[in-house]
Amino acid sequence: MPDTKVMKAALQAYVDRTNAGDWEGLLALFTPEAYMEDPVGTPRKNRAEMETLFRNGAAYDARIDLIGPPRGSHGSEAAIAFEVRFTPPDSPRLLICSLDVCTFDEAGLITSLRGFWGPDDVSEAPLSTD
Amino acid sequence: MPDTKVMKAALQAYVDRTNAGDWEGLLALFTPEAYMEDPVGTPRKNRAEMETLFRNGAAYDARIDLIGPPRGSHGSEAAIAFEVRFTPPDSPRLLICSLDVCTFDEAGLITSLRGFWGPDDVSEAPLSTD
Repeated sequence: MPDTKVMKAALQAYVDRTNAGDWEGLLALFTPEAYMEDPVGTPRKNRAEMETLFRNGAAYDARIDLIGPPRGSHGSEAAIAFEVRFTPPDSPRLLICSLDVCTFDEAGLITSLRGFWGPDDVSEAPLSTD
Repeated sequence: MPDTKVMKAALQAYVDRTNAGDWEGLLALFTPEAYMEDPVGTPRKNRAEMETLFRNGAAYDARIDLIGPPRGSHGSEAAIAFEVRFTPPDSPRLLICSLDVCTFDEAGLITSLRGFWGPDDVSEAPLSTD
């Protein structure tokens, strides 16, 4: 079972690399066969789709703000709650209130990520907060 | 698929009933055969154990503070991130940084709850914040 500090450090790296636009570094946090369901309730993303997601995040100036410290567990899972802001093409800056639940392998690599956000968790980002 | 508003209302009721010490009302939010794993990585709680958990919460003056709005999904799941404070017997008031992920049936009853918190997410609650 991965140490809780290792899992939380990986989640912090996920935030930091997102904010740095480091899409290759993001992909490196996951095992090659990692499961990604983001948002929850939509089909699994394959590796190419994950790469596209992370590349777009960098291109759209994605910024994650945690709304509290990462949460661990008594197993191989940990989670973060956050706000993410980004600007898609021909769009105002958007804000998603989101939450990710992840599973980890022994080395602290992410084996699964499930992202909780629904259509009503997306809004236009207020100018004053970003 | 339950409406996202229905799922979020159930999660808000979970918070409100915890804060009101309404353990019977909490139990009523779940289907009779609901799965509860709290914290994640520990064995499933049966119905009697769920009742004990909620009764103890009421007896220990459990208070939940959400750290952001509930998150929905594109499926039958939703989640909340929060801090919970409570005072077990012969203990100072404790604070757990936690996060619950729930699945719902068509009627908006909770069919599963998984609570994310690890040993290092528990601390003594500062007097000034509670």
